[in-house]
Amino acid sequence: MEILQSEIVHAELRAATLHASLTDVSMESMNFLNQVADTYPDAISFAAGRPYEGFYDVARLHAYLRTFCDHLRDERHMSETEVARALFQYGATKGIITDLVARGLAVDEGIEADPAGVVVTVGCQEAMFLVLRALRADDSDALLAPIPAYVGLTGAALLADMPVLPVRTGDTGIDLDDLVVQLRRARAEGRRVRACYVTPDFANPAGVSLPLADRQRLLDIAATEDLLLLEDNAYGLLTDAAGRPPTLKALDQRQQVVYLGSFAKTAMPGARVGYVVADQRVTGVNGETSLLADELAKLKSMLTVNTAPIAQAVIGGKLLDHGCSLVAANRRETEVYQRNLRQVLDGLTRRLGHRHDITWNAPTGGFFIVLSLPFTVDDDLLAHAARRYGVLFTPMHHFYGASGGFRQLRLSISTLTPDRIEEGLDRLAALLDERLNARNGAGNGEPLSGGTS
Amino acid sequence: MEILQSEIVHAELRAATLHASLTDVSMESMNFLNQVADTYPDAISFAAGRPYEGFYDVARLHAYLRTFCDHLRDERHMSETEVARALFQYGATKGIITDLVARGLAVDEGIEADPAGVVVTVGCQEAMFLVLRALRADDSDALLAPIPAYVGLTGAALLADMPVLPVRTGDTGIDLDDLVVQLRRARAEGRRVRACYVTPDFANPAGVSLPLADRQRLLDIAATEDLLLLEDNAYGLLTDAAGRPPTLKALDQRQQVVYLGSFAKTAMPGARVGYVVADQRVTGVNGETSLLADELAKLKSMLTVNTAPIAQAVIGGKLLDHGCSLVAANRRETEVYQRNLRQVLDGLTRRLGHRHDITWNAPTGGFFIVLSLPFTVDDDLLAHAARRYGVLFTPMHHFYGASGGFRQLRLSISTLTPDRIEEGLDRLAALLDERLNARNGAGNGEPLSGGTS
Repeated sequence: MEILQSEIVHAELRAATLHASLTDVSMESMNFLNQVADTYPDAISFAAGRPYEGFYDVARLHAYLRTFCDHLRDERHMSETEVARALFQYGATKGIITDLVARGLAVDEGIEADPAGVVVTVGCQEAMFLVLRALRADDSDALLAPIPAYVGLTGAALLADMPVLPVRTGDTGIDLDDLVVQLRRARAEGRRVRACYVTPDFANPAGVSLPLADRQRLLDIAATEDLLLLEDNAYGLLTDAAGRPPTLKALDQRQQVVYLGSFAKTAMPGARVGYVVADQRVTGVNGETSLLADELAKLKSMLTVNTAPIAQAVIGGKLLDHGCSLVAANRRETEVYQRNLRQVLDGLTRRLGHRHDITWNAPTGGFFIVLSLPFTVDDDLLAHAARRYGVLFTPMHHFYGASGGFRQLRLSISTLTPDRIEEGLDRLAALLDERLNARNGAGNGEPLSGGTS
Repeated sequence: MEILQSEIVHAELRAATLHASLTDVSMESMNFLNQVADTYPDAISFAAGRPYEGFYDVARLHAYLRTFCDHLRDERHMSETEVARALFQYGATKGIITDLVARGLAVDEGIEADPAGVVVTVGCQEAMFLVLRALRADDSDALLAPIPAYVGLTGAALLADMPVLPVRTGDTGIDLDDLVVQLRRARAEGRRVRACYVTPDFANPAGVSLPLADRQRLLDIAATEDLLLLEDNAYGLLTDAAGRPPTLKALDQRQQVVYLGSFAKTAMPGARVGYVVADQRVTGVNGETSLLADELAKLKSMLTVNTAPIAQAVIGGKLLDHGCSLVAANRRETEVYQRNLRQVLDGLTRRLGHRHDITWNAPTGGFFIVLSLPFTVDDDLLAHAARRYGVLFTPMHHFYGASGGFRQLRLSISTLTPDRIEEGLDRLAALLDERLNARNGAGNGEPLSGGTS
């Protein structure tokens, strides 16, 4: 067969021919926010949702690895050859620390998880994608999720071609009346609603937490409506508040809840280890049954094969060093987060407490506070804040897919020191002062306390 | 709104409502093969495609980490705080060792890759998924791939809902005449063929390699037909044969080749680190351009966020310890693979050389040899081989999606010692003897050498 020799041209792809997620508005959001942060690296950032890094120490990595290897030798009776193989070679698709993850859930959350129902994933992000990929079989499938939504959830849904149908968020999390309305509406439109995603504890970005009675009612709705719940709990342990209500998974008696776990905030993001508890029964065409975890593992074998055993060993070592309690492992970090949270809340009260048109919520844990303002909080305002005042935050509209949140901003408290918080709040107050004055005409606004930097 | 309290029932999912990949024949294949291996752990396995593990040593992990941290301090001038942050915290989506990957490609392959065109991935498996996900925009999109195909490619395509259109494989790899036929047929049927996947060096499972002239012609076809090539090179370096032809990417002058790289066989599977070189230009709707690597990074940010910096540090350390040459890093391992390959080929000749109805190919590198037999090689035969003879191999039909390969089996040589190889070949020969005798009627078959164990 003869092939005509063409002139040498460079291959070119058109973005319009690539997967639709690449041109979705949420990708633009991420890009814009990263760009602002990169352009103003010295700005005081209330934007970054990263964990506190003041206690990071490379020597600990070596120590965690040694702890885990000792565990393999002493508790799993492995020879040196077997220990080396466990870390260097391909490993079980579900992971090599499913038992330690289960022990941790029992110790910290009172969740009794069978290790067979656990899949260790490349961060919680892969867990979200695996669950959505498994549940997305045809074009009628859809997911319910409270808006504002975590961008990781939105992204995973885009990659899985799974539409997200918004549910309203109230002052204490998902609006359960609206959930039922949206569920029934979706079904009436011919949608197959596969699940509802929910973050009951200190949700990103809203910072809100669901009261116990609402958790019970949400589980009842799930049972009545035959609705799977995807519970994301990245922040639940990061509080010293007494009486935190149990997770949905701890309350779940009917396997209605798939539990999405992260070690990014409670151990370290750099291991990229998360997990999913998926103990639901799946019935095959011939009546045989498996666990949803086994089905997710099949998908994982085709996506990342297994989570790096070396990374699992680091997390396993950290768990073992603290009796599998991440509450115990995070006492110092939790102190920092709680101190920062109180300092920002107190600082907002001192600076803005007299303004009745500016409000904010008061979470008792996690990383996030939401401020509501009497003017538009758009990307221009963020760019102006960065350039003129050297302070960063996240306009909430980025979590609404451009459908709301236009007068709100998110403050993240996780990475700052006390000095930077005071200075940052001064800068933020100066920005708000300027904007309120501009809105009211120069000199007519109520003065805000705090000067520019 | 009132919710009726239902009786407590356990949530149950039906497999038929889950993503179609979960019930695909290839998933059954993987399960069956794993099950046989698990049931007969003491069988001599010519089935496992894992790398040789005789040189694994946990102390090396610590050493690699230290080497990489020294590199961050000395060459990137990072403070202790910055080094700790680089390993513990979220990192750049494209990875923190893109420069070392590019140096390695220059040293070992003569590929001049701009680090900006590299994305470090969670094994080569994630790289395949990301590329297919990016290229799969609507139902008309399809991928060409030579059959028999690597199960990882088949799996990634299933997850991305990307149909794989088969191209014939000849004695030296992809059949280029058939490639053009299949490409034109697909286009005539209204398909948008996004790329052709190809493994020019010691392909899994066929073991074959593409001659230089065919590589040039394949690149010409790609240019003429405006076809992207996805080059997978997991095994290319694992040979001592002189005169290995350059990779497609090294020959590529038009950015027609997306290069898929793995460190699983050349460093260790347990880090789960691979990469993709995607230096193609992508043109946006407003005429702005980016690299395909940037688009893949956007998808990765929604799939795994970034590849574990801790795992990248281990691979980075190994690269640095050997001047970024994986050829140098694998001298001992390559000796083992080459010795095993020759021993298996010699052993086959000694035992089966007189049988003109049994043939096999003779790769000069990689892990795989394919045997063609005068009878059916199905899963029953494998189960029988495992139970009766204590020897494992892989029926080739598993790589054809049940559309061919019914009289072939794959032998993998990577994990065995010389003694086990001799014993394993004796067992295999005894099995073939039994089967040939049964086929010809008892006592009528030509005798094979080698006794049962």
